[in-house]
Amino acid sequence: MTVGLIPGSFDPFHNGHLEVVERASRIFDEIVVAAIRNPQKSEPLFDLDQRREMIGESCAHLSNVRIVSIATLLVNVARDVNATSIVKGLRAVSDFESELQMAQMNRSLSGVETLFLPSSSHTSFIASRLLREVARYGGDVSSFVPEPVRRRLDEKFPRVTP
Amino acid sequence: MTVGLIPGSFDPFHNGHLEVVERASRIFDEIVVAAIRNPQKSEPLFDLDQRREMIGESCAHLSNVRIVSIATLLVNVARDVNATSIVKGLRAVSDFESELQMAQMNRSLSGVETLFLPSSSHTSFIASRLLREVARYGGDVSSFVPEPVRRRLDEKFPRVTP
Amino acid sequence: MTVGLIPGSFDPFHNGHLEVVERASRIFDEIVVAAIRNPQKSEPLFDLDQRREMIGESCAHLSNVRIVSIATLLVNVARDVNATSIVKGLRAVSDFESELQMAQMNRSLSGVETLFLPSSSHTSFIASRLLREVARYGGDVSSFVPEPVRRRLDEKFPRVTP
Amino acid sequence: MTVGLIPGSFDPFHNGHLEVVERASRIFDEIVVAAIRNPQKSEPLFDLDQRREMIGESCAHLSNVRIVSIATLLVNVARDVNATSIVKGLRAVSDFESELQMAQMNRSLSGVETLFLPSSSHTSFIASRLLREVARYGGDVSSFVPEPVRRRLDEKFPRVTP
Amino acid sequence: MTVGLIPGSFDPFHNGHLEVVERASRIFDEIVVAAIRNPQKSEPLFDLDQRREMIGESCAHLSNVRIVSIATLLVNVARDVNATSIVKGLRAVSDFESELQMAQMNRSLSGVETLFLPSSSHTSFIASRLLREVARYGGDVSSFVPEPVRRRLDEKFPRVTP
Amino acid sequence: MTVGLIPGSFDPFHNGHLEVVERASRIFDEIVVAAIRNPQKSEPLFDLDQRREMIGESCAHLSNVRIVSIATLLVNVARDVNATSIVKGLRAVSDFESELQMAQMNRSLSGVETLFLPSSSHTSFIASRLLREVARYGGDVSSFVPEPVRRRLDEKFPRVTP
Repeated sequence: MTVGLIPGSFDPFHNGHLEVVERASRIFDEIVVAAIRNPQKSEPLFDLDQRREMIGESCAHLSNVRIVSIATLLVNVARDVNATSIVKGLRAVSDFESELQMAQMNRSLSGVETLFLPSSSHTSFIASRLLREVARYGGDVSSFVPEPVRRRLDEKFPRVTP
Repeated sequence: MTVGLIPGSFDPFHNGHLEVVERASRIFDEIVVAAIRNPQKSEPLFDLDQRREMIGESCAHLSNVRIVSIATLLVNVARDVNATSIVKGLRAVSDFESELQMAQMNRSLSGVETLFLPSSSHTSFIASRLLREVARYGGDVSSFVPEPVRRRLDEKFPRVTP
Repeated sequence: MTVGLIPGSFDPFHNGHLEVVERASRIFDEIVVAAIRNPQKSEPLFDLDQRREMIGESCAHLSNVRIVSIATLLVNVARDVNATSIVKGLRAVSDFESELQMAQMNRSLSGVETLFLPSSSHTSFIASRLLREVARYGGDVSSFVPEPVRRRLDEKFPRVTP
Repeated sequence: MTVGLIPGSFDPFHNGHLEVVERASRIFDEIVVAAIRNPQKSEPLFDLDQRREMIGESCAHLSNVRIVSIATLLVNVARDVNATSIVKGLRAVSDFESELQMAQMNRSLSGVETLFLPSSSHTSFIASRLLREVARYGGDVSSFVPEPVRRRLDEKFPRVTP
Repeated sequence: MTVGLIPGSFDPFHNGHLEVVERASRIFDEIVVAAIRNPQKSEPLFDLDQRREMIGESCAHLSNVRIVSIATLLVNVARDVNATSIVKGLRAVSDFESELQMAQMNRSLSGVETLFLPSSSHTSFIASRLLREVARYGGDVSSFVPEPVRRRLDEKFPRVTP
Repeated sequence: MTVGLIPGSFDPFHNGHLEVVERASRIFDEIVVAAIRNPQKSEPLFDLDQRREMIGESCAHLSNVRIVSIATLLVNVARDVNATSIVKGLRAVSDFESELQMAQMNRSLSGVETLFLPSSSHTSFIASRLLREVARYGGDVSSFVPEPVRRRLDEKFPRVTP
């Protein structure tokens, strides 16, 4: 059985992330999406539990996908879930290099491979960092995130009527 | 009438920024320079008012340029000033990708286009981040910033005589 | 009056090119599209006259756009048509660097500036080089090129029914 | 059943290619390696048949891998072999962008996804272009290519004793 | 006499850094390694004194290398030690651009040149940022750092037995 | 004694190349500039002998520099001249990656290191490829090349009076 592990901050989970999960779920027998605590980003928009919940609701239509949240090394999770590969979406060249470093480091630490899925062109400009900024100012991000994420963003940041 | 909107942190405004404003002022009927509050950078060197003042003095010779400072979404400002295009300077490849993401996001949110003006080669290495560091240690940045900026930097960080 | 000069091989002209012309035509009073002979590519798919014709038909709906074909230095054309700026579409990081070199060289030779317009995300993967290859093998490129180009490609390379 | 299609010029097939095939063969049920005729490179070192033969001998230890050579559009082959995904190795940033364009074009033409496998660090500098040059001058490439390729290169370009 | 100055955060010093020092020590008559305080990174893993100590022990086998720690502008140190060149390791494309900006700024401020030494392929994925994260979670970094660094990391973050 | 080997096509040798030679001649005891035959570029502008001559005249003011022309593997030349390092100028990110591959390949073949010297900002846009094109059309390249190169270009391509 092949198991793909998709890690990320997912703060928030957006349509570009969802697309990667959907495509990977057609390649692997099972997909584990892992929301990770990023120790370098001090103030997340949503805490780990909220993120896991939102991802779960957004992926409810995918029967071979389950969600975990982690505060440990990714390679430990990979071993625990018997991951065949780590799977990452790739949006841009600047993503690629730091992802490549992490992929080679993870492989060196544990032998687990990393596979990259390129973003489709219509989601390649969606970035959590930009979404957080737009949402904070009351902008409309409903075309960039799944419905369960949009609802929580609307609760947190009431929309400004232009 | 064409209106170009040039946004940035401008902390501080330097000769590379000035050059972009000068060149854009020859292409557009009117230019609006917008100093923006960057919520991710917690401690700016100069506050928004000081930055607006310095940019204003540095651009005093350009009759079709006016300066605003903003703490809202850029696309809202673009709508308020009837901007024909957002205009950004491009120094390097690494600038390009995040700028491209922002350009596509802004276009998707509001329909406003972004135009890029490449830096001329002799200003391409000037970066506000490096200038802040050099000035903090008492280094001489007078050949990289307009006179009104140099004066304020000298007040803030007395020059160290080597 | 502002005049934008849009140079390119345009072999063939595709929807990504058309989009750049359309957007530039809203910023500049007049647009000149210049099909250039690339001395380094020995066997073009279409000759310069055919390319000029195809671009003309594809841009017929844009009243302030005219087409020329050139076999001289771009900066000479820029001077002849009184171009305010050269305008180039930017698709990708790898485009950016050689474009930046050319922009700085052209500026150094003649003082003419270059402006960059980023591709919209849904055309960013369309490249003439890929289209030529797909068309040569009888693939269907009709969703990537304007109708006048599709017609000529179909004449040249009869479509293979899958 | 999952089928991975690995296309390339493979002129010559080297240890970096072999590593990608080996890793992909552990992720997919079946792997098809496709040696493609590149119409833009006029004089290949080895013809398509020789390349298919060399790849076959180099992958003889992998029971779920078969080799084809093609002179048609990749997406046609993908359909013919019922490929679940196209699989490409990624060595460097500069590879990434043109690969991403091709991936998006292929997806748009046929719906077939492309997966990327990053090179391991110790093969990332091996490039067929460099190997051809070294071999032509009689240099020793035996540590960069599988034995069946080394043998044929030695026949073609007798080694120069330093 | 030629003097090479190798600056860095070195938090922690790793095998990729050591390799650059070893190679530079064969090109220059004397090497000065300078551990710098990075004012933008608020909480270093090791303080400047600890870093200088670790680098010193790690380079004890190199007779023409000495270590300093600095909290001033790099160009001042370059002048104080009569550096012929600044020497930096280059791992990746994304390193290159910001390094190039700094090199041009330093040259403009003081006339001192910067030389780049590319990482060897087997150390190119080692990054202090990743090592800090792995060590914090009790992962094993012993194959990526010199023995004196490993010992101090083990004291700080007791290893987790898997 | 340290010996730096600077290889290149130098077709033609320009001010960016000259600057690298001048800077390297202050770091190394001796510099060897090697004009190489590029088997992939079929029609050079100047043949190898002409290039060696032009480089020699352009570097006549540098007493520790000598010029060779080669039609063999670079690593063989490096061994023959006892090179301590290969030295390359770096203009741009896109140069960097293929240079890095070559550096790692050369190191793997022969143990010889490669050092990179970044272009100064005012020569970073000068590229032989662009100069050949400008010169062919009778444009003025006199501010981009040394006098001995300008003279030969003028003989080959009579200047067009604008």
